[in-house]
Amino acid sequence: MRIVVLAGGIGGARFLRGLKAAAPEADITVIGNTGDDIHLFGLKVCPDLDTVMYTLGGGINEEQGWGRTDETFRVKEELAAYGVGPEWFGLGDRDFATHIVRTQMLGAGYPLSAVTEALCARWQPGVRLLPMSDDRVETHVAVDQDGERKAIHFQEYWVRLRASLPAHAVVPVGADQAKPAPGVLEAIAEADLVLFPPSNPVVSIGTILAVPGIREAIADTEVPVIGLSPIVGDAPVRGMADKVLAAVGVESTAAAVALHYGGAERGPVAEGGGRREGGPGLLDGWLVDSVDAGAVDEVEAAGIRCRAVPLMMTDLDATAAMARAALALAEEVRA
Amino acid sequence: MRIVVLAGGIGGARFLRGLKAAAPEADITVIGNTGDDIHLFGLKVCPDLDTVMYTLGGGINEEQGWGRTDETFRVKEELAAYGVGPEWFGLGDRDFATHIVRTQMLGAGYPLSAVTEALCARWQPGVRLLPMSDDRVETHVAVDQDGERKAIHFQEYWVRLRASLPAHAVVPVGADQAKPAPGVLEAIAEADLVLFPPSNPVVSIGTILAVPGIREAIADTEVPVIGLSPIVGDAPVRGMADKVLAAVGVESTAAAVALHYGGAERGPVAEGGGRREGGPGLLDGWLVDSVDAGAVDEVEAAGIRCRAVPLMMTDLDATAAMARAALALAEEVRA
Repeated sequence: MRIVVLAGGIGGARFLRGLKAAAPEADITVIGNTGDDIHLFGLKVCPDLDTVMYTLGGGINEEQGWGRTDETFRVKEELAAYGVGPEWFGLGDRDFATHIVRTQMLGAGYPLSAVTEALCARWQPGVRLLPMSDDRVETHVAVDQDGERKAIHFQEYWVRLRASLPAHAVVPVGADQAKPAPGVLEAIAEADLVLFPPSNPVVSIGTILAVPGIREAIADTEVPVIGLSPIVGDAPVRGMADKVLAAVGVESTAAAVALHYGGAERGPVAEGGGRREGGPGLLDGWLVDSVDAGAVDEVEAAGIRCRAVPLMMTDLDATAAMARAALALAEEVRA
Repeated sequence: MRIVVLAGGIGGARFLRGLKAAAPEADITVIGNTGDDIHLFGLKVCPDLDTVMYTLGGGINEEQGWGRTDETFRVKEELAAYGVGPEWFGLGDRDFATHIVRTQMLGAGYPLSAVTEALCARWQPGVRLLPMSDDRVETHVAVDQDGERKAIHFQEYWVRLRASLPAHAVVPVGADQAKPAPGVLEAIAEADLVLFPPSNPVVSIGTILAVPGIREAIADTEVPVIGLSPIVGDAPVRGMADKVLAAVGVESTAAAVALHYGGAERGPVAEGGGRREGGPGLLDGWLVDSVDAGAVDEVEAAGIRCRAVPLMMTDLDATAAMARAALALAEEVRA
């Protein structure tokens, strides 16, 4: 079975570990978000690709969910001693090496997809990891600071400000000009199943879908498209998805996120029930957490098959059970 | 008193520490060798400038004489795990930060002299440290490998091969097109004294002298030019100066090195007593080690005032005593 998974960082990476356990024979292609990539100290940092690569490759810091295990911060401390920042971005010594290799290869002219493949040759994540695009896309967030509306880099909003200011808009700058990376559209066209893990619907999956051709390919596919809610009991399972959902006018509920993606048959539905702009609908199936069982009817009314199951990725078993539930829902949709 | 010191790496840096102790009120300008600079992992590494900066700024690894104290090698180990080398160059985590800052500033358009000043703002070495040139100079060594004569980077010869092959030539590539960095010629013109520490006469001081204008400025100065022999008892005090001295046809003796620099009045003297090519002579005075007292007459016969004193930099006191001997010889020459 060929499965395509759209993944952001921590949520996507952890779900993928469960999926691999649930479907060890599956041929999995991951389309990774690159909208939160950032240049720091002259180095190209791809936080989401690295989180997937480190998590599946056994190099992740399990507790924090990002960065390398057994990490030190000597380089960063020394940079700070020179007065060079930013200090708010936690780039560890081991992690630096990844960015040095990536930056050197990009400088030599390799596209990010080739670089990612080269890095994965070391980590052996057991999936094919593709960046959504080889072109530069950078998610900016509009906030009010010092009496002005400003666009700041997503990482500055997310990591430095901890999403403490209202986000007035989230813009994947460059996405409209970006092309899907080699293999992305082919993987979707050849997939038996497309999954949206419980990743951020705006800044992770939303950014991937903003690359022209990807949303359309998923909307066009005849195979099941199944998502898992990143919202449990009206709050994000982790992270601050509610902050950026507000920016796109979507409530932080499991049902609202499903309607935002839209049913494959009937398209996205706006709050209040009208048609929503933003392209064709995508979902055939949607999993909500057991505590959100009350949302099932609303989601199904939008033409999306919906089931309520436990959605907390507390350990590998729980995560594998979620993946199995998604596979089962896909079979149900297919039948 | 304004003192100009031409410095390579370890020998120059340690001598400077003694000089600062011997002449705490002196205004010292160091002209640093940049011929052994190397690009590694996309970063500009300036080993000699850094050795001076770290040694005088209190950040040096005292035992090895180069690199940072309390150093770790996480970044390098991770790069090796990606298959990225070279592994033979010991770039530590703390050291990386220096090269990242330097590379970023150079990339922004600052000349190396401005970058060096910015780095020294942190280290406060207590001297004015100038690169010999803002232009790129790269010392290459001609060796026979695999049946062919090849030019390899000085660091590859010195660090990777440990100077284990005969050096057929030592060429400071780019030196003939390089201009002295801002302040270099002015410092020499305004100096009360010029010192050659016991640094490598070929790849350290020789490279600095190869930048057009520097040798001439030192030859033209009316103030004393005093050198200290890096050779004690026919062998280099440390390092492998004998390997590269052979490449320029100079014996590894305290006297031969003095005649190679040449007396300020009579110019350089070749082995056998003839005039030597390579520009005007430089030295007014030369210190040899007590074990080389027998060389004093030969050096003085070339018009260079010569004294034999202990020249082993075993500790700060011994090094300060060497600096005091150099200052005393300068007074003797001046009188």
